[in-house]
Amino acid sequence: PQSKLPALGTTIFTQMSALAQKHNAINLSQGFPDFDGPEYLRERLAYHVSQGSNQYAPMTGTAPLREAIAAKTEKIYGFAPDANTDITITAGATESLYIAITALVSKGDEVIAFDPSYDCYAPAVELAGGVMKRIQLQPPEFKVNWAEFADQVTDRTKLVIINTPHNPSATVWQDSDVEQLWQVIADRHIFVLSDEVYEHICFAPEGHASVLRHPQLRQRAIAVSSFGKTYHMTGWRVGYCIAPAVISAELRKVHQYLTFSITTPVQLALADMLREAPEHWQELPAFYQAKRDRLAQGLANSRLKVLPSQGTYFLLVDYSDVSSLDDVAFCHWLTEHVGVAAIPMSVFCAAPFPHKLIRLCFAKQEATLDAASERLCQL
Amino acid sequence: PQSKLPALGTTIFTQMSALAQKHNAINLSQGFPDFDGPEYLRERLAYHVSQGSNQYAPMTGTAPLREAIAAKTEKIYGFAPDANTDITITAGATESLYIAITALVSKGDEVIAFDPSYDCYAPAVELAGGVMKRIQLQPPEFKVNWAEFADQVTDRTKLVIINTPHNPSATVWQDSDVEQLWQVIADRHIFVLSDEVYEHICFAPEGHASVLRHPQLRQRAIAVSSFGKTYHMTGWRVGYCIAPAVISAELRKVHQYLTFSITTPVQLALADMLREAPEHWQELPAFYQAKRDRLAQGLANSRLKVLPSQGTYFLLVDYSDVSSLDDVAFCHWLTEHVGVAAIPMSVFCAAPFPHKLIRLCFAKQEATLDAASERLCQL
Ligand SMILES: CSCCC(=O)C(=O)O
Ligand SMILES: CSCCC(=O)C(=O)O
Repeated sequence: PQSKLPALGTTIFTQMSALAQKHNAINLSQGFPDFDGPEYLRERLAYHVSQGSNQYAPMTGTAPLREAIAAKTEKIYGFAPDANTDITITAGATESLYIAITALVSKGDEVIAFDPSYDCYAPAVELAGGVMKRIQLQPPEFKVNWAEFADQVTDRTKLVIINTPHNPSATVWQDSDVEQLWQVIADRHIFVLSDEVYEHICFAPEGHASVLRHPQLRQRAIAVSSFGKTYHMTGWRVGYCIAPAVISAELRKVHQYLTFSITTPVQLALADMLREAPEHWQELPAFYQAKRDRLAQGLANSRLKVLPSQGTYFLLVDYSDVSSLDDVAFCHWLTEHVGVAAIPMSVFCAAPFPHKLIRLCFAKQEATLDAASERLCQL
Repeated sequence: PQSKLPALGTTIFTQMSALAQKHNAINLSQGFPDFDGPEYLRERLAYHVSQGSNQYAPMTGTAPLREAIAAKTEKIYGFAPDANTDITITAGATESLYIAITALVSKGDEVIAFDPSYDCYAPAVELAGGVMKRIQLQPPEFKVNWAEFADQVTDRTKLVIINTPHNPSATVWQDSDVEQLWQVIADRHIFVLSDEVYEHICFAPEGHASVLRHPQLRQRAIAVSSFGKTYHMTGWRVGYCIAPAVISAELRKVHQYLTFSITTPVQLALADMLREAPEHWQELPAFYQAKRDRLAQGLANSRLKVLPSQGTYFLLVDYSDVSSLDDVAFCHWLTEHVGVAAIPMSVFCAAPFPHKLIRLCFAKQEATLDAASERLCQL
């Protein structure tokens, strides 16, 4: 068949994880923990499976999970979405992002995203017939220039995709960024898709700048999150999106013909976890900050320069003192010859990104981080 | 937002299940068992969760599951797909159908389906910019007139969607139907998407006419199946598609940005089940035939006329001696006043479908079937 996505190959995450396996390298590329999630959560899954909760969940998600998410959202962001009309449970955050783009973007609509940007946004826009306008941000701060952003907005702009804490740059937005975004789009018919899957892995003292905190913006926003990062279970594939009822109604039309509903006993286990351990997420910043600092310290005597990480479980390092290879070639070389797999930054950018930066995942046990540091210090 | 699927409401399954719940009716509408799946399978899920298999599965699916599917396919259909390149694990069969349509259908392409047709095909075609051409089949046999089909094929026909055993009509194709389809499309660039989720619930002595049995057609076909029906666990949401490598490569591009990967421990449990109980599926025809016959017998003295069911876990009944209401109104009335929920047939047809037929699901315990029969005999 003729390809509808001719330029696309396999994701960088699949590529690098396969390469890591082939060369038996320490895998700091694809973002996933090498430790397990809460025992209580795993037990609850076994419980619900044994109790016979194994048939179709409601299309929008099970009521206990939607209600637990509504309660949690109110507690954290001071805004209570309606569990019936505003929250939809999906196959990971990935499906939420896909259905939002598919439901909102029509042929010729423009979608603005900030590069580096996560790799699933652009293909969904392309399949919807939309046109991606990608604004390149520059290291080390990856700050948006709001005048430049305003220049890119046109009458055809339908959607802006944002992401904070930001994968792969590990920067975070502040509430003032959300406000500046609002100022530009307030008088236009523009929606905002906000990828907030690392909402609880935020090291900034101001905390996470969710769009849900912004009383006006949230009326145009789809906030996307998931449980994979929060509970260290990236393989369970349950995410969700929060959006006003009129927007949710459109997303759900796509969702109901795309996956219909999400694994029932997993949803029920997650609902139990949210209800019984509502403070779990508060431990995450300290938990991950210790890992971040351990890896950064481990690299202090290396020839790699560590950039600040304000959120996510990623750390950028600059290898310009080590090699003149471009970042993709360097990541391959590093995996094969040094035994550490990482993710190149340029793959997240449409424009040339000549910086010598790679991304390391620190969602790993101390022993893994130490072993990786040791290898990287030999560079 | 402006709707991209303006005509779409909530699926009939969600509507009728909600109505059944509201009126405390016996729910023979949405198709799901009211009994549980194999204990071994449930135990294996708990096992893999406890063993820490909780991170991202490979994008295409776990190797053990793809290999087990390849082995099963060879055994049953005499054709061994390549586990690496031809098999993709998805979020239920629903996602397989969606990614196949999205990957293959471009703006203006024509897609032929036979009505009554399952409700997720047309919205996916519409989102892809394709044009549905729906050929209406007539009860009680719902037979394709191949000359009529040939007349509908044009140079713009890209895809034909078929479904056997057929939901909702409960008819099945024979190998000769597949051959007739092949004769029409052999010299054209047309793909076939074959929805075979009820492959193991087939009562016809000739067995299930999978496209995978046809050496030429399968080179153009995407065969879709799932585990929900086979293992009585519709809530686990794991399906798969089998297609030649060049087609699978395109489907996977969509899959990787739509759900990325499927719940890891569920995949591993299903692989164990396929390996350890490879004969399980052979019990299904007798198991479900007994249920079908029990419901049909229970209705023998009613004023409903039972149509033959050759496959699926559905039975059509003609209520023309009972009521002159149209089928949608009758299903609402039946739920509210008789306490039995069913699915109207007309919702699966684009053309007017004036027959007085409704669909009953017999994937129920004997007591459920008997209670429903008792109520329906009072009509
Ligand atoms: C969906 S696999 C990639 C995991 C991830 O989000 C990342 O590594 O950035
Ligand atoms: C996806 S919910 C509907 C279940 C089903 O396939 C049916 O009832 O036909």
